Amino acid sequence: MNRGFSQCGSVLITGASRGLGLQMVKNLVKSNERPARVIATARNPAAAKELQDLAKDCSGLHIVTLDVVSQESIDTAVQEVTSLVGEKGLNCLINNAAINISTDLETVNFEAMMKTFESNAVSPLMVTKAFLPLLRSAAQQGSGMGIHRATVVNISSVLGSIELNWGPGATFRSHAYRTSKAALNMVTRCLASDLRSDGILCMSLHPGWVRTDMGGPQADLDVEESIESVLSVIAGLSEKDQGEFRNYLGKSLPW
Amino acid sequence: MNRGFSQCGSVLITGASRGLGLQMVKNLVKSNERPARVIATARNPAAAKELQDLAKDCSGLHIVTLDVVSQESIDTAVQEVTSLVGEKGLNCLINNAAINISTDLETVNFEAMMKTFESNAVSPLMVTKAFLPLLRSAAQQGSGMGIHRATVVNISSVLGSIELNWGPGATFRSHAYRTSKAALNMVTRCLASDLRSDGILCMSLHPGWVRTDMGGPQADLDVEESIESVLSVIAGLSEKDQGEFRNYLGKSLPW
Ligand SMILES: NC(=O)c1ccc[n+]([C@@H]2O[C@H](COP(=O)([O-])OP(=O)(O)OC[C@H]3O[C@@H](n4cnc5c(N)ncnc54)[C@H](OP(=O)(O)O)[C@@H]3O)[C@@H](O)[C@H]2O)c1
Ligand SMILES: NC(=O)c1ccc[n+]([C@@H]2O[C@H](COP(=O)([O-])OP(=O)(O)OC[C@H]3O[C@@H](n4cnc5c(N)ncnc54)[C@H](OP(=O)(O)O)[C@@H]3O)[C@@H](O)[C@H]2O)c1
Repeated sequence: MNRGFSQCGSVLITGASRGLGLQMVKNLVKSNERPARVIATARNPAAAKELQDLAKDCSGLHIVTLDVVSQESIDTAVQEVTSLVGEKGLNCLINNAAINISTDLETVNFEAMMKTFESNAVSPLMVTKAFLPLLRSAAQQGSGMGIHRATVVNISSVLGSIELNWGPGATFRSHAYRTSKAALNMVTRCLASDLRSDGILCMSLHPGWVRTDMGGPQADLDVEESIESVLSVIAGLSEKDQGEFRNYLGKSLPW
Repeated sequence: MNRGFSQCGSVLITGASRGLGLQMVKNLVKSNERPARVIATARNPAAAKELQDLAKDCSGLHIVTLDVVSQESIDTAVQEVTSLVGEKGLNCLINNAAINISTDLETVNFEAMMKTFESNAVSPLMVTKAFLPLLRSAAQQGSGMGIHRATVVNISSVLGSIELNWGPGATFRSHAYRTSKAALNMVTRCLASDLRSDGILCMSLHPGWVRTDMGGPQADLDVEESIESVLSVIAGLSEKDQGEFRNYLGKSLPW
């Protein structure tokens, strides 16, 4: 059993305006084992009404503007977060923001491929690079690996599994999205090798097929169900998860 | 045993100005079991001296301009190739052109990620889409799968294997290139599902680590050695290779 997020000083979530990102924030701040600081980021916080309401009577919940496809926005967010967390650094970065442009063989085009790759694979890399000084600060305190020290979780998708994109698993066509998530998984794996010696954990996590704007109404899980499991997996991460690809139940997925 | 390329009416190779692409052309035109037509494409054929010399006294070798990152260039090339191959269509498309911008955690940036993805993953998809009418024409003749009918070979790399990017396999850091080739492998897998019912084979092929401009002088193989094996694997492709990732010896690689 893990101690939830009480062992974790600070969590930052991208794309917290709605969907899974927003639900992570909700669950984290209401938990008995909550992290000291929850940094909920959104590209347009003013439009994120639910998030704003949540922050009203909740200390330790900070809303920071972060558009993950803008380097300027990333750099500004890093400054803001640095002044929030100070020398303790950032313990857990959850790269959750993503887009899904619906594409099949007929409709997939240059723009859809590039834009989806930019948001879903390049941005998590650029965001992680920018927050590295803060993750390294956090990693200097403590031993072992996990959210008590420094962890990067890339929210990936089973649709990014090249292996599983076959037979019945290939029914859902989505060339741009699938490609971007396979690319993200490679980013995870590169970062896991790069950051191991710093004591920073990095892994890919599939949240299940969930009823959000992206997942649609036919999906298997509701957001509460998915995020309860997702957060429990994240809370329990350790050395054995370095560079791995797991689902919301902690089960290993093939690349 | 396969019958080499004598069973294949036409082969088109991208990036045939130098390196592995040029060597493919050389081996194909000198072979006793050569395809009827070899269409060697390059973004700047005028600068490809060796290719020009080769074409001088070689019937059935056609040089066509093709810059794989330009849709306009792709469309013009399709027109030209259509007038060459007519109703017989195109039997074998080899997406070989690629770039490698050297990047590690420190140096990788937005531009390197986007540009490498564009050349190495999006372009093979766009080129394949554009040549689909010609591949489909070819696939209408014949049964089974392989280069006697219609085949798309994406030249990938073992560096695109997410699984193998670990431990000693991760020594060579190259974030942008690795990510682009993992993405290409997903493109292969998507296309293999899409095109199966058309009788078009699609697979990813790692040519080995080869002494070209890209591979560098320390690489394991010389171009002749790599390409002899690569062409033999391509000549022997059949249903069992649909959507697979193999090396130049035909061995299966993990995604
Ligand atoms: N739902 C599923 O079934 C499912 C399955 C597998 C994986 N996933 C993954 O889970 C994650 C969350 O998905 P979801 O279902 O919650 O999707 P969603 O309901 O569409 O929400 C996407 C979130 O990402 C944000 N976002 C997109 N681009 C952004 C940018 N450039 N900068 C900042 N934020 C940006 C959106 O912000 P705005 O409100 O400003 O647009 C929104 O908060 C994604 O990585 C997705 O790929 C979802
Ligand atoms: N060499 C290795 O060890 C190795 C290992 C694994 C995989 N590979 C793969 O094998 C393939 C060939 O590599 P190589 O070693 O022959 O590389 P190379 O020596 O660098 O040659 C690259 C070729 O791609 C062409 N090219 C690049 N961008 C292009 C564009 N936009 N349009 C048209 N042509 C373009 C180049 O044309 P220009 O002459 O006009 O620049 C050149 O002909 C690549 O897919 C590479 O990733 C190579």
